[in-house]
Amino acid sequence: MHARRQTLAGLTLLLAASTAQAGDDITTLITEGTDTVPACATCHGETGLGSADVGAPMIAGMDAGFLAGALRGFAAGTRRGDTMSGIAPELSEAQIDALAAHFAALSPEKQDWPLPETDTPADVARGEAIFRNGAWDAGVPACASCHGQNGEGQNATFPRIAGQEPAYVMTRLEQLAEDPQPSDDSTVALMASVARKLTPEDRAALAAFVATLDPSAGHVTGYTAANLAWDVPKMKASPLADAIDWTAAQTAYEKQQKRINNPKVYTHTPPSVDKIPEGPEGEMIRFGRDIFINTQQLRGTYVGNDLACTNCHLNAGAKADAAPIWATTVDFPQYRSKNLHVNTLYERLAGCFTYSMNGTAPAPNSKVMVALETYMKWLATGIPSDAIVEPRGYIYLPVPEQKPDYARGEAVYEARCAACHGSDGAGVKNGDHVAFPPLWGENSFNWGAGMHDLEKAAGFIKHNMPLGNADLSDTDAWDVALYIDSHQRPQDPRWLGSVADTRRFFQRGSNTYGLTTPAGKMGDIGAPLPKPAGLSAAESVSPKLTDVARAQIAAEGAAN
Amino acid sequence: MHARRQTLAGLTLLLAASTAQAGDDITTLITEGTDTVPACATCHGETGLGSADVGAPMIAGMDAGFLAGALRGFAAGTRRGDTMSGIAPELSEAQIDALAAHFAALSPEKQDWPLPETDTPADVARGEAIFRNGAWDAGVPACASCHGQNGEGQNATFPRIAGQEPAYVMTRLEQLAEDPQPSDDSTVALMASVARKLTPEDRAALAAFVATLDPSAGHVTGYTAANLAWDVPKMKASPLADAIDWTAAQTAYEKQQKRINNPKVYTHTPPSVDKIPEGPEGEMIRFGRDIFINTQQLRGTYVGNDLACTNCHLNAGAKADAAPIWATTVDFPQYRSKNLHVNTLYERLAGCFTYSMNGTAPAPNSKVMVALETYMKWLATGIPSDAIVEPRGYIYLPVPEQKPDYARGEAVYEARCAACHGSDGAGVKNGDHVAFPPLWGENSFNWGAGMHDLEKAAGFIKHNMPLGNADLSDTDAWDVALYIDSHQRPQDPRWLGSVADTRRFFQRGSNTYGLTTPAGKMGDIGAPLPKPAGLSAAESVSPKLTDVARAQIAAEGAAN
Repeated sequence: MHARRQTLAGLTLLLAASTAQAGDDITTLITEGTDTVPACATCHGETGLGSADVGAPMIAGMDAGFLAGALRGFAAGTRRGDTMSGIAPELSEAQIDALAAHFAALSPEKQDWPLPETDTPADVARGEAIFRNGAWDAGVPACASCHGQNGEGQNATFPRIAGQEPAYVMTRLEQLAEDPQPSDDSTVALMASVARKLTPEDRAALAAFVATLDPSAGHVTGYTAANLAWDVPKMKASPLADAIDWTAAQTAYEKQQKRINNPKVYTHTPPSVDKIPEGPEGEMIRFGRDIFINTQQLRGTYVGNDLACTNCHLNAGAKADAAPIWATTVDFPQYRSKNLHVNTLYERLAGCFTYSMNGTAPAPNSKVMVALETYMKWLATGIPSDAIVEPRGYIYLPVPEQKPDYARGEAVYEARCAACHGSDGAGVKNGDHVAFPPLWGENSFNWGAGMHDLEKAAGFIKHNMPLGNADLSDTDAWDVALYIDSHQRPQDPRWLGSVADTRRFFQRGSNTYGLTTPAGKMGDIGAPLPKPAGLSAAESVSPKLTDVARAQIAAEGAAN
Repeated sequence: MHARRQTLAGLTLLLAASTAQAGDDITTLITEGTDTVPACATCHGETGLGSADVGAPMIAGMDAGFLAGALRGFAAGTRRGDTMSGIAPELSEAQIDALAAHFAALSPEKQDWPLPETDTPADVARGEAIFRNGAWDAGVPACASCHGQNGEGQNATFPRIAGQEPAYVMTRLEQLAEDPQPSDDSTVALMASVARKLTPEDRAALAAFVATLDPSAGHVTGYTAANLAWDVPKMKASPLADAIDWTAAQTAYEKQQKRINNPKVYTHTPPSVDKIPEGPEGEMIRFGRDIFINTQQLRGTYVGNDLACTNCHLNAGAKADAAPIWATTVDFPQYRSKNLHVNTLYERLAGCFTYSMNGTAPAPNSKVMVALETYMKWLATGIPSDAIVEPRGYIYLPVPEQKPDYARGEAVYEARCAACHGSDGAGVKNGDHVAFPPLWGENSFNWGAGMHDLEKAAGFIKHNMPLGNADLSDTDAWDVALYIDSHQRPQDPRWLGSVADTRRFFQRGSNTYGLTTPAGKMGDIGAPLPKPAGLSAAESVSPKLTDVARAQIAAEGAAN
């Protein structure tokens, strides 16, 4: 063994010497050539950047193993190349290694290559699509899968194609496609298989596109903190209005009318309750529906007030004009102006618990959340996933000429609402059992809930109240909505320390937050009360819009 | 004011005395009656349970305010009642209050009421549906909304209807429906409005159903810990097999064939990449797709190995025979045999991070998760939400007569796979940059990932590998799948302390976990390695199946 190791060491030395000698004469080979070998620079240029005139590829900075392999392939006749097939057999093994090492060490540079003439102009966009996404209908994977997302190439097997001279790329793809003999080299055979699936137009498109890539770029670099952070736009800071701004309500009505009158609207009928299937999914659907109705059974765990889902989403979320929940699994993830980012269905549901239920959302995989999502998925049965489903939310009313009035609202409320909801708005409760839901006060929805917007309240009332006999006029509905939403309720949990600052979350609808009504200055009740004992883990909403807003206020303060 | 208060106090005393006197004579009223007032017991019974013979309602235990109000209504002629309209005017105010208090204090009891004769038999199921869910097409809310989920009633306004005598219920609903004069009492007018929307058949159905409810039951009681706990069935404990059980693979193939050959199958074509919309949702779609391809940019945060989503879900999840992800937003929530409960899409995706990526799932509302879900929603564009979408997952192969062989698999691997994935299965990596994915070893998917099942690996390989030239025979695919999955990989994070115990998670597919292959005893590598530094919050999966299994093992140990 000892002797053998010495021999190997000697051989290594010998090879190193041989390479050094070859190195001495490759300068001549490259710049001047010999009797049998034309100068490499003639076609590839001294810097190895290639030439469009003769379709010579850019070899500067390519993998040395790949370059040496290509030369040996030309020499052996296993790689086709009109020019190189004649030259490579004249090179010694040492010259091949030295030339490969030499050009691999040079730096590639992006060239402004002219495109070869083709019958139709090369479709660069199609080339990019094939490069990045593949042409899977034809069985062509994305070039990027093997050659790298930037076309930077990979080891000796998968050459860099970024910035390559386009005539060369087209020729090479054509050679591979037309080669009648499958290569013994499995990766060459693979590339030939891919090339055969490309049309001549595809080849031109690819050649044109890869020419635009920067050959000096490496692989895709990592996501930065900025990539992974949410770029949430600023919520406007605004002075307190001294009166309700009715523009939002009117705009909401007009936009909804347009949506509803879209001829492409899909009108949904959810399956009937007796069609809930058996089995574990059926159990979850049933439980989700039960939670929707018997929500008070979650009081003290996830629910912090006296409401149930079905109080606003009548018929357990399956009534068309009472914010039906049947399209939620189709609609989400969805961008929401409420928090200026794309929300998953989970985040949307968490919002219901946080605001409408003044509580704390269950964890994403808790039985409660899974049951609610499973129930909603079942209600969606049959909706095409790209359907424009209407109606959604509450059906808005046009803002009347004669603006809503608190005193008129009070009279309507006493006559038509107080029997169930109480003159004090507290609903009816027997011990722990809520018989009728409170509309304001400490046990109702908080200021962050959608129902604090007057257009939502008026739309809900008009179409649904009194329950079973919804006969109020538009005017009555507006008046009573104003009356109800002119009373205090739990603070918005996004509380920023003052009503003026917190009001930035109230930009979307027409509402009274921050205004003074006969019942006081709305929202001026201090910080949110602590959650009831027993509430579980805090809602997980990222980004925390409150934090974003707080930072903005600090920045605005610093700028002033 | 002082004098007035005294007067009021005097009046109260007077009333109390009067009530006491009335109390003395109501016993006679109830049991014997007077010249002008027949005995209450004649129709309602001494115990107030009512009578089907004369259609007298069960008044025992009803709200005293309701009973007194009804008597005063009969007396004033504002409430119709053939019998009571004649009797009530004869009662003094004091007698009314005393009778109401007396019957309110008695206990109701469920009766086996006969149903009144109707043209068609009363449809009890329809009655229950209206009671619980309403007949919203006709504008009828659920009776339970006001009368309580158990029909127990609510205060003086909404009477108990549970267990009520059915002929009385039918008559009362008919009276309300046919009353030409709307009541001055808004809640009576409301009930009349509801009654008018019921057909005679509905009324009979409701009467028949509410008769079945227990009048002594209160409102719905709270969810118990058992309601909110997941009732996850036991995972079978099993002895280690001494050879692969191929039954699972063959069953999976046959089941999938049936699904694929279902004539109702929906074949999906996702939108092309250039159709991704602009705006914030479009940004999320693009970022989600980018994560799918450039998953390694999450290495060290959520990803613990060298894989990318698109390594298995080719074409960024949009290739039909490589586990397309286009139906995920339609398919979830879904029951999974992997963990024996209904999973949300979030939990499913969290599983990819935990097992296939050997990492830790991002939080539900993190930008990464939102982006992935938004991308998937976009891929689903156009799928009806109840479509049977096929193919899903990998396309299985039938289990061959000649069972797969490790040595043959090794030969195929070396010839066709090793160029990219390496003879050591470690893929190709340049510094931090993964060029080709590892198939086994510390940087590949862990034992909990789906791809450890041989039928999944064989199906994936047959239809997709080598990438761009998928020409392996079924036999070659099986052999190379067995070869790949006969090497060690990171431990299943559900590790229970021994291979024998952990094997209970490997019941679903045909696999080698716990078996001895030329590369050792599979899985016998001890506890999972700690996650790479920098990994964020632990995956949130509830219930923790590991905890369930651990408890089962403890229980089994105790039983033995």
